[in-house]
Amino acid sequence: MTATLPAQLTGQMIIAGSPVTGAGKEIRGFDPAAGLPLEPGYRHGDAADVQAAAAAAAEAFPLYRATTSEQRARFLESIATHLEAVAESLIARAAAESGLPTARITGEVGRTTGQLRLFAGVLREGSWNGARIDTAQPDRSPLPRPDIRQRFVPLGPVAVFSASNFPLAFSVAGGDTASALAAGCPVVVKGHDAHPGTSEIVARAITAAVADAGLPAGTFSLLFGSGQELGIALVTDPRIKAVGFTGSRSGGTALVAAAAARPEPIPVYAEMSSINPVFLLEGALATRGAELGKAFIGSLTMGSGQFCTNPGLVIAVDGPGLDAFVAAAGEAISAAPATPMLTPNIARSYAAGVETLGGAADLIARGAAGGIETCGQAALFSTDAQSFLGNEDLQAEVFGASSLIVRCADDAEVRAVATGIEGQLTVTVHADASDEQAAGELLPLLELKAGRILFNGWPTGVEVCHAMVHGGPFPATSDSRTTSVGARAIERFLRPVAYQDVPKALLPSAVADGNPDHLWRRIDGRLTQD
Amino acid sequence: MTATLPAQLTGQMIIAGSPVTGAGKEIRGFDPAAGLPLEPGYRHGDAADVQAAAAAAAEAFPLYRATTSEQRARFLESIATHLEAVAESLIARAAAESGLPTARITGEVGRTTGQLRLFAGVLREGSWNGARIDTAQPDRSPLPRPDIRQRFVPLGPVAVFSASNFPLAFSVAGGDTASALAAGCPVVVKGHDAHPGTSEIVARAITAAVADAGLPAGTFSLLFGSGQELGIALVTDPRIKAVGFTGSRSGGTALVAAAAARPEPIPVYAEMSSINPVFLLEGALATRGAELGKAFIGSLTMGSGQFCTNPGLVIAVDGPGLDAFVAAAGEAISAAPATPMLTPNIARSYAAGVETLGGAADLIARGAAGGIETCGQAALFSTDAQSFLGNEDLQAEVFGASSLIVRCADDAEVRAVATGIEGQLTVTVHADASDEQAAGELLPLLELKAGRILFNGWPTGVEVCHAMVHGGPFPATSDSRTTSVGARAIERFLRPVAYQDVPKALLPSAVADGNPDHLWRRIDGRLTQD
Repeated sequence: MTATLPAQLTGQMIIAGSPVTGAGKEIRGFDPAAGLPLEPGYRHGDAADVQAAAAAAAEAFPLYRATTSEQRARFLESIATHLEAVAESLIARAAAESGLPTARITGEVGRTTGQLRLFAGVLREGSWNGARIDTAQPDRSPLPRPDIRQRFVPLGPVAVFSASNFPLAFSVAGGDTASALAAGCPVVVKGHDAHPGTSEIVARAITAAVADAGLPAGTFSLLFGSGQELGIALVTDPRIKAVGFTGSRSGGTALVAAAAARPEPIPVYAEMSSINPVFLLEGALATRGAELGKAFIGSLTMGSGQFCTNPGLVIAVDGPGLDAFVAAAGEAISAAPATPMLTPNIARSYAAGVETLGGAADLIARGAAGGIETCGQAALFSTDAQSFLGNEDLQAEVFGASSLIVRCADDAEVRAVATGIEGQLTVTVHADASDEQAAGELLPLLELKAGRILFNGWPTGVEVCHAMVHGGPFPATSDSRTTSVGARAIERFLRPVAYQDVPKALLPSAVADGNPDHLWRRIDGRLTQD
Repeated sequence: MTATLPAQLTGQMIIAGSPVTGAGKEIRGFDPAAGLPLEPGYRHGDAADVQAAAAAAAEAFPLYRATTSEQRARFLESIATHLEAVAESLIARAAAESGLPTARITGEVGRTTGQLRLFAGVLREGSWNGARIDTAQPDRSPLPRPDIRQRFVPLGPVAVFSASNFPLAFSVAGGDTASALAAGCPVVVKGHDAHPGTSEIVARAITAAVADAGLPAGTFSLLFGSGQELGIALVTDPRIKAVGFTGSRSGGTALVAAAAARPEPIPVYAEMSSINPVFLLEGALATRGAELGKAFIGSLTMGSGQFCTNPGLVIAVDGPGLDAFVAAAGEAISAAPATPMLTPNIARSYAAGVETLGGAADLIARGAAGGIETCGQAALFSTDAQSFLGNEDLQAEVFGASSLIVRCADDAEVRAVATGIEGQLTVTVHADASDEQAAGELLPLLELKAGRILFNGWPTGVEVCHAMVHGGPFPATSDSRTTSVGARAIERFLRPVAYQDVPKALLPSAVADGNPDHLWRRIDGRLTQD
């Protein structure tokens, strides 16, 4: 009956360290490769569970935010260590629940622990404090200048919504949780129904790390429930002060609307929808059109195309180079095997999206059809620039291994498409040295459209580092001023506070005289470690 | 008939450098001290004017954002110089239109030019670029690491709504305009009906600076119009990408809602409502209760109390110290002369707010009554903590020289009030050395409530500097993560972009090899000027 059943799975939520069985409907993990449901059953929670988790988070907040950067760094590292201790059962369960290959899931464990350790490093480096000091000028005329100091403080308890497509790196202990905990915010996670067992294993690791560190139990909770009910209850609970979400455009915009309608509106960081345009410039197409076509299908079909950075749009000027690209891409996609998608629902949505695209664009080729209902059959379409610009449906994200090639008459049409697209997580340019001028003209347009611009590569694969931006203008995200991957993600859960003439004994150490935390600080406008 | 009429006033809006006479209703500046309308008449613009200004701003944006930091710094300094060249007529007109003393308006000119020059310095220092470089690791296993660089880019054209109470520093060339222009964003200002002549003089100075710098004319426009019509049209124009607003809670929340309902939602930085609580601790009250009471009324009545940082709430434990404070405050307020408020409407709203407060709290004393309808009569009330916590009306901002003293039974009630108040721009604490422990317990609560915490001073007076935070949790502002005063204000109009494996010849100079802009940059996580 079941593919894997780690002995320790209980089917429960965890509210402030305690296992809680929900009173709502029963859900189960589902092995999309085997087409089988997984044990145990998990019950959805309800508004009372939200209230319990939010109350515990609010109670934990004053204690948790009073921890030092070093204490939180060790806590994040401890979560990573606890995850590594259960890596074997975690990988088996996540692979079973997602249908993703073990190698991919193994890599995702490393990415997840790597994210936690990145934020430990960010905490120790200390610039996240945003420390600034403007010294007093008691003799200034006509008015003396007071002593003014600034640092960032955490917003408060954060609600995190797990993603379907990254059961680890964008889920219970994923980037949103890691960055919110780093900022000093307790976290309440709504686990994704597609991987409840994975969620439970990870939540237990975090709970163990909370206990090891002697932190208040309300620092972390895991709930299960429907987005419309438990999700909205969570976002509208007055004790929740910010939201991280990775998922669909409809889901994200619903949370944004609910948060904006609160008596006290709160920020929502929703990463939603992106088709990640790829621009193929003339020189690159001429020298390596066929090679690019083959590599493109490799990026498109990876993980059954279930990446938010999946290349769903290709733009190029018509000609022999593009013909070679299309021919190679068509050949490669025809050879692409059917692979399981994350859930039956996602597979159905994908099939419907491909059907809609097929009604508005020309089919180039399909991949192999699968034997079971969860299989995704890759798809490649083409259209011309005028049709693309005249039909909003052609810009809609189809989550899965489907892409659309837009054939342009000339560079002007390429720029018109670049101007006409919605906001994106990524835009890719393939360019040779001979394309430099054209690429230079395109770049300022692309900067207005995407959070990340990459050359001569593929957008799938998001490096977790200090300079990464995984974000972008709406509808890629609900807030283009931030990133959900990389060091800057911590900034989403902070706000600045100024301290004017506060007695020295009461000043937070980040802005205290003598720089006891050894921070980079901006003193009278100049960066210094003094 | 008119108090002052600089020869050059035309009664026109300025759209992309050209004077335009609106087709809407005629408004006039009004001298609230003399009770007289001022020449010339100004006509409100309409949706067509919004479209013209937004189209010009959008056209200007690619050129304006391509300017260097140094070019924009000189442009901001040129605006300051042009303002100083017309200072005499500007001060006369602003004083007439606001009823504020010439000395105050003279100071505000200095603050306005100082803000422009602060952002010139921020641009030259260069950290606003947020430059980060993560170097490539081609040999990393299992996957090579690409070269990833990050910088901030401007959001696009910004709409700025002028405030009534700072005809210069929070108006046409105020902090929002200065920070948006610094960021590389063209600006469309909706001038305030209370000071159209001042707005025209300032807009002409900016327009002259735009021309001197050879910038596209659409870099700046000034419109007049109603908030409900022209204001909403401006915020919902698809070419506008962010909004700065200083005004009422109802006005701000209306703009936030309009911006959120756009097909592409945009950020709104609305600074709205704050009653700026002042906590008087036991030691301070015991040693200088009477002195504090007198100084408090000085801060309360300054500028007819028309500051967003006006101290509208005082919290203390009952006892002889508070009695001395109240007696001195009551005496001082009784001696406070009636002074003109900015507009007849503001004077009427103030009178209504005082009447509401009087129905729910006990009157301590009123200031002198004025001879004309625009005069504000200062007012001081008191209540107990339980009444305050049980009646939301007592937390509503009354814009003007009115304040409420909350008498608490003990420290626990003080903390209950601190926990019960809404978000604030400022919170003030008066504390002696003997109050250190009590202040230390209060401080973490106050950090959650306000953007600025000040000790042993008064909240009126906002220093323009690097460490200032003029912001705070809702309803003080619509976005607590920022400040509208001080160097960080530029960050409101920027978003990060990552450049992955972008050819060196195409990299923006902020993240180019060799650091040609001599910036502080974060390279592989470490700050350096290399």
